[in-house]
Amino acid sequence: MSTRKQPQGNATPSAADYLIASRQCELMNLQYFLQMGKVVQSISNLVHGLQRERGATNVFLGSAGEKFAAERRATVQESDRLCGLFEQALTEVHEELTAHPVSSRLLNGLASALHGLAQLPPLRASVESQALLVEDATEAYSRLVHEMITVVFEAAETAVDPSIAGLLVAMVHLMNGKELCGQERAVGSAGFSRGCFSNAQSKRMMHLIEAQERCFEVFVSFVDDHSRALWQSLRANPREAEIERLRQLGCSVGRYKSLDPELADRWFALMSDRMDELKTVEDSVEGCFHSRCVERFAEARNSLAHQETLIASLGAEDSGPQPVLVLCDSGEEARTGKAWDSDGVGERFGRSLFDLLQEQTRRLQQMDDELRSARDALEERRTQEKAVLLLMDHRGIDNDEAHRLLRKLAMDQGKKLTEVARALVSMADVLK
Amino acid sequence: MSTRKQPQGNATPSAADYLIASRQCELMNLQYFLQMGKVVQSISNLVHGLQRERGATNVFLGSAGEKFAAERRATVQESDRLCGLFEQALTEVHEELTAHPVSSRLLNGLASALHGLAQLPPLRASVESQALLVEDATEAYSRLVHEMITVVFEAAETAVDPSIAGLLVAMVHLMNGKELCGQERAVGSAGFSRGCFSNAQSKRMMHLIEAQERCFEVFVSFVDDHSRALWQSLRANPREAEIERLRQLGCSVGRYKSLDPELADRWFALMSDRMDELKTVEDSVEGCFHSRCVERFAEARNSLAHQETLIASLGAEDSGPQPVLVLCDSGEEARTGKAWDSDGVGERFGRSLFDLLQEQTRRLQQMDDELRSARDALEERRTQEKAVLLLMDHRGIDNDEAHRLLRKLAMDQGKKLTEVARALVSMADVLK
Repeated sequence: MSTRKQPQGNATPSAADYLIASRQCELMNLQYFLQMGKVVQSISNLVHGLQRERGATNVFLGSAGEKFAAERRATVQESDRLCGLFEQALTEVHEELTAHPVSSRLLNGLASALHGLAQLPPLRASVESQALLVEDATEAYSRLVHEMITVVFEAAETAVDPSIAGLLVAMVHLMNGKELCGQERAVGSAGFSRGCFSNAQSKRMMHLIEAQERCFEVFVSFVDDHSRALWQSLRANPREAEIERLRQLGCSVGRYKSLDPELADRWFALMSDRMDELKTVEDSVEGCFHSRCVERFAEARNSLAHQETLIASLGAEDSGPQPVLVLCDSGEEARTGKAWDSDGVGERFGRSLFDLLQEQTRRLQQMDDELRSARDALEERRTQEKAVLLLMDHRGIDNDEAHRLLRKLAMDQGKKLTEVARALVSMADVLK
Repeated sequence: MSTRKQPQGNATPSAADYLIASRQCELMNLQYFLQMGKVVQSISNLVHGLQRERGATNVFLGSAGEKFAAERRATVQESDRLCGLFEQALTEVHEELTAHPVSSRLLNGLASALHGLAQLPPLRASVESQALLVEDATEAYSRLVHEMITVVFEAAETAVDPSIAGLLVAMVHLMNGKELCGQERAVGSAGFSRGCFSNAQSKRMMHLIEAQERCFEVFVSFVDDHSRALWQSLRANPREAEIERLRQLGCSVGRYKSLDPELADRWFALMSDRMDELKTVEDSVEGCFHSRCVERFAEARNSLAHQETLIASLGAEDSGPQPVLVLCDSGEEARTGKAWDSDGVGERFGRSLFDLLQEQTRRLQQMDDELRSARDALEERRTQEKAVLLLMDHRGIDNDEAHRLLRKLAMDQGKKLTEVARALVSMADVLK
């Protein structure tokens, strides 16, 4: 690996060695994300393929095999192709991932995702022979999609660079929102084709709509400008108003007059169109993520080379108490965290090893501060998921009910959802 | 490195490969702490040596060179010896640390510590020639000690195993408390030898006492039973009551009758004795940390080997949807997170790859939950330090005043110190 520092035999390592090693550590993290980016991209594509396959499967099973037989087979083929690309991307980073393991969770997430993918052939055989309920097929695909998204989530947690972490947080929330949109498509399709929504279906739909909005809110607060603009134009699409009208039909609990079954096809088409457009936003985030990684990696590599030159020029002279003057970045650049950008031009002020150390300490501190909001967003998501599982387990209720209960608790106590979730999780031992 | 998995050429990695890699990742983290333990131990020893050197230096400078000239030279020699051992420990882990860099912060912390140590010879020369104020010498030593403790702090942040993280949190807080005790010794020595305490000295002493107590509270809540018992017997030592009486003399602001200068020697001896006993508690924590690392590493290695055997016995048969039955740990062990302990005895129930994956997911989840309190304690400490720096910077006040202001804010708002600190840090941009 080109960025790895050669160990120096048995010589006692110096302050300068560790300063360089500290920067190399950042560089290695960036290099790893350059590679992980390809995996994330292939997951985004594969998830989209699986969502299409799930949609076609639902129509196929819901129509007792009369509709979408050929379409479904085409989606299966496409998923297989995308699955192959995912495995290929994984093979390319395998050595990096397992020789410098970054996170047990990420690796375990990949294991679960691969295991889930290995269950696809028997699932499809059951679908083909119509030996499966629509709900069970939806459930199986949804679980698999969830496992794939979890990989991106775990990858986001390993990011050290704030701008890269932020984009991955945006990505995870967009993928989650899109998946909830896919599940809403399934519930709506079931209701519209039956001609009416059960109470449970209406409630589920409201839950999915609300959960989607929360995902998109987080997405918007972390994403780059270009992708945000794409998102806004998606929102402005006339399709969205039509979806809203259909949603109101489905969610009006207590209505008993039956709906036009023709609406089912329209709903499916609208929601599929929405998901395709969400995918283009996802691609834009992915593109931005990739160029950010390339950019940050190049900056970090240049800056590292620059530091090495500086430190070499300090030589052994720095062991004394007096700062040794050398050419270096201007103080302003260091203060604003732009030191990575320095290319040796415009250097005006002298600098000692002590100053370089101070600068790195400040930089790491600043990165940590900036990273906090991204980490918090991930933490909130994880805490809420834990709280929901806890409630499901403890009260014997389903996922939606647990979400509703959590929201009710927050409302009743006048607290944030996250606070309530956190309190619940911290009480886990007592509740058992 | 014995625990590293060999990459498998270009074969597509399987779910089982990543499950194994996930466990290997945990194992590597444990192995790294086996090695880091030696560095932590050498830091604990070196810090104690530097604190003695600082104490002797203060008496030497405070008595205009009349007292402790020989004692001081002896402490210098001892510090040099301990410094050599620290560098040796570092040399042993250097390859590991820089080839698999764990944290930029830790590496940067080591750089700062080594740089600080390189400044010792000129500092000592100034002391020798009495060209330095007592306060400035204390300040220089304290900064260096702080840098050394920061390394342990950063190491604690990289721990993945909850029991190991908890002991490191205990260690860091004990080291910090002991260092505050050392600073209190210095302030008290200055006050008692002058015969009276200035208002600022009294305030500083109160601050140091309060801050020590907070450190020890956290220490007690994370430490092992044996070390806690040692700590309790330290508290029960009659010396503590005598220190308390002298503290009250020093802290009674507004008193103007002068103190018996003889008290200075007594105070110094008492506090030095206290620090030596704190060091024995530190050694106990260190010993417990080491045996915990050895134990957890052995468990993890056995469990990994066991999993590998299990997975090999699953072979290619597991690709179907039906669980393939194999001999494995009992379900109860998996649920209680004891799966690492399994040695193949008492296995009764069949298990598929899916079950192994679920088990690993649960284990990682549980570790994450257990890790939270340790991470929170570190986070609180970091946030408070940030808030204090922010206040110092923004209001132009010194460290103690900033601590006081922070406590006052918390009291006025009826909030926890951490909440106020967090609010301040999140407002940093606005305050600038």
